[in-house]
Amino acid sequence: MAEARARQDRLTKPRGALGRLEALSVQLAGIAGVCPPPVPSPAAVAVFAADHGVVAEGVTPWPQEVTAQMVANFVSGGAAINVLARAAGASVTVVDVGVATPLPPACDGAPGLLRHPLGPGTANLAVEPAMDLATCRSALDLGAQLAADLVAGRPPLGADPSGGDPSGGDPSGAGPPGAGSPEAGPAGAGQSHAGPHGGARALVTGEMGIGNTTAAAALVAAFTGRAATEVTGRGTGVDDAGLARKTAVVERALARHAGAVATGPLETLAALGGYEIAALAGFIVGGAAAGVPVLVDGLIADAALLAADRLVPGAAARCIAGHRSVEPGAAAVLEELGLAPVLDLDLRLGEGSGACLALPIVEAAARILAEMATFDAAGVTDKER
Amino acid sequence: MAEARARQDRLTKPRGALGRLEALSVQLAGIAGVCPPPVPSPAAVAVFAADHGVVAEGVTPWPQEVTAQMVANFVSGGAAINVLARAAGASVTVVDVGVATPLPPACDGAPGLLRHPLGPGTANLAVEPAMDLATCRSALDLGAQLAADLVAGRPPLGADPSGGDPSGGDPSGAGPPGAGSPEAGPAGAGQSHAGPHGGARALVTGEMGIGNTTAAAALVAAFTGRAATEVTGRGTGVDDAGLARKTAVVERALARHAGAVATGPLETLAALGGYEIAALAGFIVGGAAAGVPVLVDGLIADAALLAADRLVPGAAARCIAGHRSVEPGAAAVLEELGLAPVLDLDLRLGEGSGACLALPIVEAAARILAEMATFDAAGVTDKER
Repeated sequence: MAEARARQDRLTKPRGALGRLEALSVQLAGIAGVCPPPVPSPAAVAVFAADHGVVAEGVTPWPQEVTAQMVANFVSGGAAINVLARAAGASVTVVDVGVATPLPPACDGAPGLLRHPLGPGTANLAVEPAMDLATCRSALDLGAQLAADLVAGRPPLGADPSGGDPSGGDPSGAGPPGAGSPEAGPAGAGQSHAGPHGGARALVTGEMGIGNTTAAAALVAAFTGRAATEVTGRGTGVDDAGLARKTAVVERALARHAGAVATGPLETLAALGGYEIAALAGFIVGGAAAGVPVLVDGLIADAALLAADRLVPGAAARCIAGHRSVEPGAAAVLEELGLAPVLDLDLRLGEGSGACLALPIVEAAARILAEMATFDAAGVTDKER
Repeated sequence: MAEARARQDRLTKPRGALGRLEALSVQLAGIAGVCPPPVPSPAAVAVFAADHGVVAEGVTPWPQEVTAQMVANFVSGGAAINVLARAAGASVTVVDVGVATPLPPACDGAPGLLRHPLGPGTANLAVEPAMDLATCRSALDLGAQLAADLVAGRPPLGADPSGGDPSGGDPSGAGPPGAGSPEAGPAGAGQSHAGPHGGARALVTGEMGIGNTTAAAALVAAFTGRAATEVTGRGTGVDDAGLARKTAVVERALARHAGAVATGPLETLAALGGYEIAALAGFIVGGAAAGVPVLVDGLIADAALLAADRLVPGAAARCIAGHRSVEPGAAAVLEELGLAPVLDLDLRLGEGSGACLALPIVEAAARILAEMATFDAAGVTDKER
């Protein structure tokens, strides 16, 4: 990182004139352990999908079936994250870690979909722990394994590369990687899991789960000690009455699980989290361990990031906040971890959309450090010498 | 634009959840006059370089030779804008519209460099008009012609595609387009003028000129009626004493040229501008007329944008502010024109760097509108129906 900082000062521009790009390039050098750092491309997006028992409390206007419907939308390439990943040359891997309702027939044997359900949605965190500790550990392991596989360019989660699993019933049966490619065009359903160079050089956190902003807000409150009113937001569109109801649910959950919260981060995550949130926390730790930057955005991924950093202190230093979410809980996480988001585009979608949009900026930061000429090499007069 | 707005509301996401991307997609539909709008790629960056007589007033710590040295850096591919353009798949065309000192030998016959000097730098705007009206019109025409050529995929400014002009002395002798390509790699000097599809689908304003933030601040003050103290900033690194001197120069220039400012925008631009600023104003009008988005950023381009919109009211509606500059004059322009920048990365470089970084975001906005599935097509339940 010191070498990267020194090199930035020799490049043909006034010192500091590239602002955040300079700081990002220094962080990338630290993550990779080399200067200049490799360009963090291609990237791999993992979208973890799961349902939440807390929807029984009326915390969202969307029906639970939308989680399964959106999984089908992801595998057929029509969701925002698919479009943004294609634009960034990134792959998309969708993992069902616990969708409650049946997946539409379009998901049967679909490439790019991995089925590893940990249950038919979590339990209602307002009245009992969302999951037990063993299941939480399984979700963490699954996420970490997927990160390692994507970076290594292996079939993800032991997926059989020869074909899908039309029955859809076996958790070990996953869609084949790489039926399509990022260049397959708008209609391309399958996007390969691994980039053209074998493995992913950056990871992007994505998620889908009706009701998951309630779980995420509860986690942020628990990990930061902030009040429910400070970290609970409107998610994807609750009105004033809905927000009051949602905030009360978060307060009730925090009171009920105060013992778990006092015990430790794993217990907190199990009591208040979700399958996709725990898997994302594992995914973040796995990416950090593999030495690639992990781009996060949105309240759900931010809650997972906070859990990851509490489980493995320092994990957040290898992460990049892609986008400033309008959710108050997301801002609380970034403040807690001292992260400044790359983009601020008023997104409130999740799926990993804001992190995916930040990929070209992060790639540009690496390329600046590697490709720009120095004052000496270019024969440009440096006023500061 | 109405069709684009209505389509955004049918895509598989909560309404408005893609924030600025939605607004950008609507603007792109308006610029192209079709919904969904074409993806604004490939883009073409034009870097206009010129010197400024006002450097005699001590407004910058950088020697004037740096303008010529940086032109050589641009044509050899080592400047920030080259790296960022390659990362975005954009071409770079460098135009000498009036560099005062001799260009380094590396520029002789260099591909991607067009030589159309309007003089050996402008006159000192603190004591006389920077240029006469005829020269200002020439600069505007030159910029507009380059925009039209880049969009049409023609040899820019009538450049001879068969070879360069090693003598470097003839203003009509320009480098050949397309010796290299955006994929030519870090060392690639020549970047083709036109994209792979023939013509550019977006334009990016770039500039280089030691002393040009003084001219730009004077223009912004003149066009907005703001005081010199409100719009004069530190540029690429003046200290407190330098800032006071620079502000006093702007005040003196505004007093001296009050008559020109009262007469009209062409007279104002000639009295207070620079060759590259006037060329950029023409380039913006040319791009707007050609129906492609023009991405601007930085104080210099913002001053040109304001001049363009005063000369051709409405031109700014076809422009996208790529980046929020830290220069106070840039903020004044965006406020005056009601533009919100896409990025805010603390850049203070110019060259078109911030606009180039915004290209992938603008492209993503167009792709979202064209490629995302609708609720009906994807079989996803819309809570708002």
